[in-house]
Amino acid sequence: MFLVMKKLLFSFSLIFLLNSVFAQQSPTWIWYPGDFEIWLSNEMQNRRTERETYFPPFWRMDSHYVLVEFHKEFELSSPEEITIAAEGKYNVKVNGKMLPGMPSKVALNAGKQKINIKVYNQQTVPALFVEGKQVTTDKDWKVTFEDKEWIDETGKASSQSGTIYVNAGTWNFNSLDKKPSAFKLPTRLEQAVNSSKIGEGTLIDFGKNTFGFLTLHILKGNGKVGIYYGESKEEALDTNHGETLDVLNVNLPQAKDSTLVNSKGFQYVYVVPNGNVAFDKVSMQYEYLPVEDRGFFKSSDEQMNRIWEVSKYTMELTSREFYIDGIKRDRWIWSGDAYQSYAMNYYLGFDSETVKRTILALRGKEPTMTHINTIMDYTFYWFLSIYDYYQYSGDKEFIALIYPRMKTLMDFVMKRRNKDGLLEGLAGDWVFIDWAEGLSKKGEVSFEQLLFTRSLETMALCADILGQQEDKAAFTKEASLMRDKFMDYYWNQNKQAFVHSRVDGQQTDDVTRYTNMFAIFFDYLNPQQQAGVKKNVLLSDEVQKIMTPYMRFYELEALCVLGEQDEVFQQMKDYWGGMLQLGATTFWEEYNPAKSGIDHLSMYGRPYGKSLCHSWGASPIYLLGKYYLGVKPTSPGYQTYVVEPHLASMNWMEGKVPTPNGDINLHVTKNKVKIKADTGVGNLKLKSKKRPTSKQGTFLDIGDQMYELKIEPNRSYEIDYLAI
Amino acid sequence: MFLVMKKLLFSFSLIFLLNSVFAQQSPTWIWYPGDFEIWLSNEMQNRRTERETYFPPFWRMDSHYVLVEFHKEFELSSPEEITIAAEGKYNVKVNGKMLPGMPSKVALNAGKQKINIKVYNQQTVPALFVEGKQVTTDKDWKVTFEDKEWIDETGKASSQSGTIYVNAGTWNFNSLDKKPSAFKLPTRLEQAVNSSKIGEGTLIDFGKNTFGFLTLHILKGNGKVGIYYGESKEEALDTNHGETLDVLNVNLPQAKDSTLVNSKGFQYVYVVPNGNVAFDKVSMQYEYLPVEDRGFFKSSDEQMNRIWEVSKYTMELTSREFYIDGIKRDRWIWSGDAYQSYAMNYYLGFDSETVKRTILALRGKEPTMTHINTIMDYTFYWFLSIYDYYQYSGDKEFIALIYPRMKTLMDFVMKRRNKDGLLEGLAGDWVFIDWAEGLSKKGEVSFEQLLFTRSLETMALCADILGQQEDKAAFTKEASLMRDKFMDYYWNQNKQAFVHSRVDGQQTDDVTRYTNMFAIFFDYLNPQQQAGVKKNVLLSDEVQKIMTPYMRFYELEALCVLGEQDEVFQQMKDYWGGMLQLGATTFWEEYNPAKSGIDHLSMYGRPYGKSLCHSWGASPIYLLGKYYLGVKPTSPGYQTYVVEPHLASMNWMEGKVPTPNGDINLHVTKNKVKIKADTGVGNLKLKSKKRPTSKQGTFLDIGDQMYELKIEPNRSYEIDYLAI
Repeated sequence: MFLVMKKLLFSFSLIFLLNSVFAQQSPTWIWYPGDFEIWLSNEMQNRRTERETYFPPFWRMDSHYVLVEFHKEFELSSPEEITIAAEGKYNVKVNGKMLPGMPSKVALNAGKQKINIKVYNQQTVPALFVEGKQVTTDKDWKVTFEDKEWIDETGKASSQSGTIYVNAGTWNFNSLDKKPSAFKLPTRLEQAVNSSKIGEGTLIDFGKNTFGFLTLHILKGNGKVGIYYGESKEEALDTNHGETLDVLNVNLPQAKDSTLVNSKGFQYVYVVPNGNVAFDKVSMQYEYLPVEDRGFFKSSDEQMNRIWEVSKYTMELTSREFYIDGIKRDRWIWSGDAYQSYAMNYYLGFDSETVKRTILALRGKEPTMTHINTIMDYTFYWFLSIYDYYQYSGDKEFIALIYPRMKTLMDFVMKRRNKDGLLEGLAGDWVFIDWAEGLSKKGEVSFEQLLFTRSLETMALCADILGQQEDKAAFTKEASLMRDKFMDYYWNQNKQAFVHSRVDGQQTDDVTRYTNMFAIFFDYLNPQQQAGVKKNVLLSDEVQKIMTPYMRFYELEALCVLGEQDEVFQQMKDYWGGMLQLGATTFWEEYNPAKSGIDHLSMYGRPYGKSLCHSWGASPIYLLGKYYLGVKPTSPGYQTYVVEPHLASMNWMEGKVPTPNGDINLHVTKNKVKIKADTGVGNLKLKSKKRPTSKQGTFLDIGDQMYELKIEPNRSYEIDYLAI
Repeated sequence: MFLVMKKLLFSFSLIFLLNSVFAQQSPTWIWYPGDFEIWLSNEMQNRRTERETYFPPFWRMDSHYVLVEFHKEFELSSPEEITIAAEGKYNVKVNGKMLPGMPSKVALNAGKQKINIKVYNQQTVPALFVEGKQVTTDKDWKVTFEDKEWIDETGKASSQSGTIYVNAGTWNFNSLDKKPSAFKLPTRLEQAVNSSKIGEGTLIDFGKNTFGFLTLHILKGNGKVGIYYGESKEEALDTNHGETLDVLNVNLPQAKDSTLVNSKGFQYVYVVPNGNVAFDKVSMQYEYLPVEDRGFFKSSDEQMNRIWEVSKYTMELTSREFYIDGIKRDRWIWSGDAYQSYAMNYYLGFDSETVKRTILALRGKEPTMTHINTIMDYTFYWFLSIYDYYQYSGDKEFIALIYPRMKTLMDFVMKRRNKDGLLEGLAGDWVFIDWAEGLSKKGEVSFEQLLFTRSLETMALCADILGQQEDKAAFTKEASLMRDKFMDYYWNQNKQAFVHSRVDGQQTDDVTRYTNMFAIFFDYLNPQQQAGVKKNVLLSDEVQKIMTPYMRFYELEALCVLGEQDEVFQQMKDYWGGMLQLGATTFWEEYNPAKSGIDHLSMYGRPYGKSLCHSWGASPIYLLGKYYLGVKPTSPGYQTYVVEPHLASMNWMEGKVPTPNGDINLHVTKNKVKIKADTGVGNLKLKSKKRPTSKQGTFLDIGDQMYELKIEPNRSYEIDYLAI
């Protein structure tokens, strides 16, 4: 026995030794964190054209740092040769000694080796890739944009440079030839479903809204081709008013398949050749962000299944280099829109990289001179998005990276408070809230104060996560003061609701849904106040109705929080079902059931101004996952979570909710629940006419016909119960 | 008479009409002010290599704004077609209406025309060129990096964007094909003066220190060529230790003249071919900044003439895209070094564009996180340089452009004060002062407080120039408080001098020259204090001597201000003459007469570390112009000025001092002065044994054997006097 043990030990230590000496670390391209994201977002956001004209954003576009220093220390158990590649001009220091030229191979001795590499690149992001057996680039390299290594007259370097180093940024550029600057989304061939001659041209239908690069096959001749895109047939055929078009100059004596260089969002294309230009057929290269297929929902309600599928496809189309608003128009990163994409993503692909990329791109660089996207509310959604991301992902590293940028943005906000400590729209501040007729932005709007309060709470939470006790105390105090102020200034005892605003120090009479519904799911109200808001605002026909899926998202969430899932289910069927009945293949920027015909297509005073594939239209993914499958984390990264299924009018539903470490699978009928989770400790809550039973555990009666069961990971549970 | 008058009037108005309708405005490329300068300084400062290795600065490199909006309104008397060119992707709006595509020709109607053009460019600076009869780009176009033109749901644009527009930046890119991004300094052919075989290679001598691109003529064969540059013969031949080298890979079966891509500073080149590589001879392309030949000095003292000529050549070599420190090493823009180049320039080429470019490049972009070049004193020289520039040039437009950037830099400085309101080196602050052995940077150094005080005074002056009364009052108050503090804390009554520093709230015992000499020409001292400083510091051998021409500049200036021109003249001859005797063809970074042989070449612990062509070595230009020819402005842009010639040991001297509007010419002997000025009103001051006489005016006796005469522009004065 002793001998055998010894032999085993030897084997283990040999394996360990082999690992540390020979295991090839997987290298990846690194950069200053956020810089690739800013650069890529510039590339993406400056790509849009409208009717052939370049159409950039109206806020400041930032740049990456053009000169960056990377370094890391290694303890090498044996000598090795490393390969160095950089995007940009670079130099290399080993243990403080500069090497000649720009070496692509460097021989290192065993022992302590400190590698410093400086990279300069104006055009694309300074990036670095080092590959060796032991020395490789990874997120633990340190990086700075000013090393301040000055020397004295004897050549001695300063010992007090005060330089701040941060961990390097990375993504998935894991081989030398996969350079960050060459990043492109993948494409695949898609065929049209219909093609018909109309007038001088051909109308091609791809069967559903889509995104990518058109290919004209066997194109030849000499002349121009007008290519008119449409999210609707009407738009494609209205060559004078459609939002997007390309004009292709053709000079092809020999026929050739030609793919356009501009990507567009469209279902229809009307192609009108001039001169003797001819082509055979039209296909497209569908461009997409590869996202793992994880979240899932299916039920006995076919309409709801279709709503979920179309929502999923809407999310697929608007999830690109970053989460964008719509595929036809803007194609920019809007913080308020992205905030909803993040939420949907947690119940769909759980693609944390795209969440982080988008948050970093939105923040941009110092100095902070305007709100994010110039919109006050969008600044606050940015704060909120960070804590949400932490709650779903448990990614503390990202909080550490982003926290300094949160602080400087909050500084900016704090400095814009008026003498009463409230925020009103100053010159340059867009107070957006929602697209709604006649919505007042005057004075101190309650909605902005509410989001500000919540953002201060978020600061305190993030400070706490990072153990920054002083910050935590300061932000907690500010948040508490602001919350008291918010309640004092805007709660109206008579109306039992929050008013819309305060003008010249006085409450206005106006009540709108926004503040009231957010206060619900922020949990700011006592039961009596909740009941007031529910009756006097959420369920009242006298308060102006919401016309955008954007704010419907929050309205329905508030109702779900109040236990109105049955009502919400029907509203979802009506509202999103209404778009489906009108032939929607993706969900829209705005939907007003009272409109008809081509009136549905117009917005911003333009006949086809409305985006028919808008990320904020996809919210059923989130609502179904969180309030019907009923799954949500109760501690960061699903270490603990709750499952509280709600069938509403469905006979059964099944689904999968992704987490950072595997999925939570659920099948629910009116008398049976099956659940299996790959991770965390769950708390299954069932409302049942009798105590539910399961071979896998015993339910606790928590009163009011509610029962709960602890769900251990990697175990299949089957439960009998009786739905109410 | 009446008829004639009428006819004349008609002619005038016809000419006026023709001017306004047909006169072709001269268009120029425009950009966001400072952005071209920042971009070009990145290009220049990242060009240096040391022994083949890329060697960038250690402070933050900024970027231009990548997305910029230009606009201007015109009142067109007739329709016209304009040509548009941009560096970058762009769009064009005319009277608020977007034009399709990226038009290079646009037809405009008569009447009011507002042109908005947005340009995006990541790699080089977004720049715009518009050419028409009436509509052309010039410095009066407005430009911003965020137009914040958001719209409401009806498509109406916001009326309160709060956007700040500034005047466009320009230089001399005055034709469509002269693009800013293609900027290069011109070159011309220069031949070597000697060539000799030494060992395996050939040593080529260009006769004096120079700058440019080496050409190897009739180069052929296969192999490498080692090219070892040297400011001295010793450096070129020491292939293992010289500071700069190139290795050229040759693969030329057919002989070819080959010019190297890297520019270098050198007098000697040692060229060592390997393999079967051969070449005929070596020449160079001398690269230079074209500067008008204006300032001039000549005298009966041949050594001083040579000092002036070599100073001029030193300035020529170090005046490049920007004023740099030296031609061999650094080749970066250092604020303290540039401050002296500006001063010399006012007595040489009066090249205001290069002064402005350098000031803008040094400032970089927000956020301000470190001192300029990381050096505290260099931040202060930057402030001082702006008022000096105004005093010499009278350029108020530049003050308007730079003032906001001065304010934010001063904010940064103010926030770094300690509890006593003083500045000490915090982490990341380099307290430089001078290259001097054992110079203490501990605690609150008096020199930094003095420069800080002067910078606050500069802020007040600039605020006043712009009519910013509130700022003026605030900065005047801060300056006055700081000046009192400076006098209280650092003047030592016993020593009758300023001490070097304050440590732990106590004056130190140490007295150095820096603070004392600056206080002289800042005019902070009463006559008794002046006398104390002169005796106990400036003329004392017990106070540590200055070894750099950099601080010699100020030391000699202080002595000149104290009327010690005779002494200074001799010191110049000794110090700069000393370098000449050692064969200097340009003046050095540091010169210690006590050293000998190759010890003169070393610095920073490296055998050839010292720069032998350093801009701060050229200060005799300034001293001779200001304190011997004795010309200086007394109001901005030489509207008024003073001429107070001082011959010292010269029998005669003559010279020319440039101003923004022509020159001031002077010829001085011991009994005759000739003067003619193109501009301004001068005050000629002569010390004479008897009252000077002139046919052009009468001298006023101002006592102490001093006489003065008012000098009108464009008039030749000949004066008889008797020099003392």
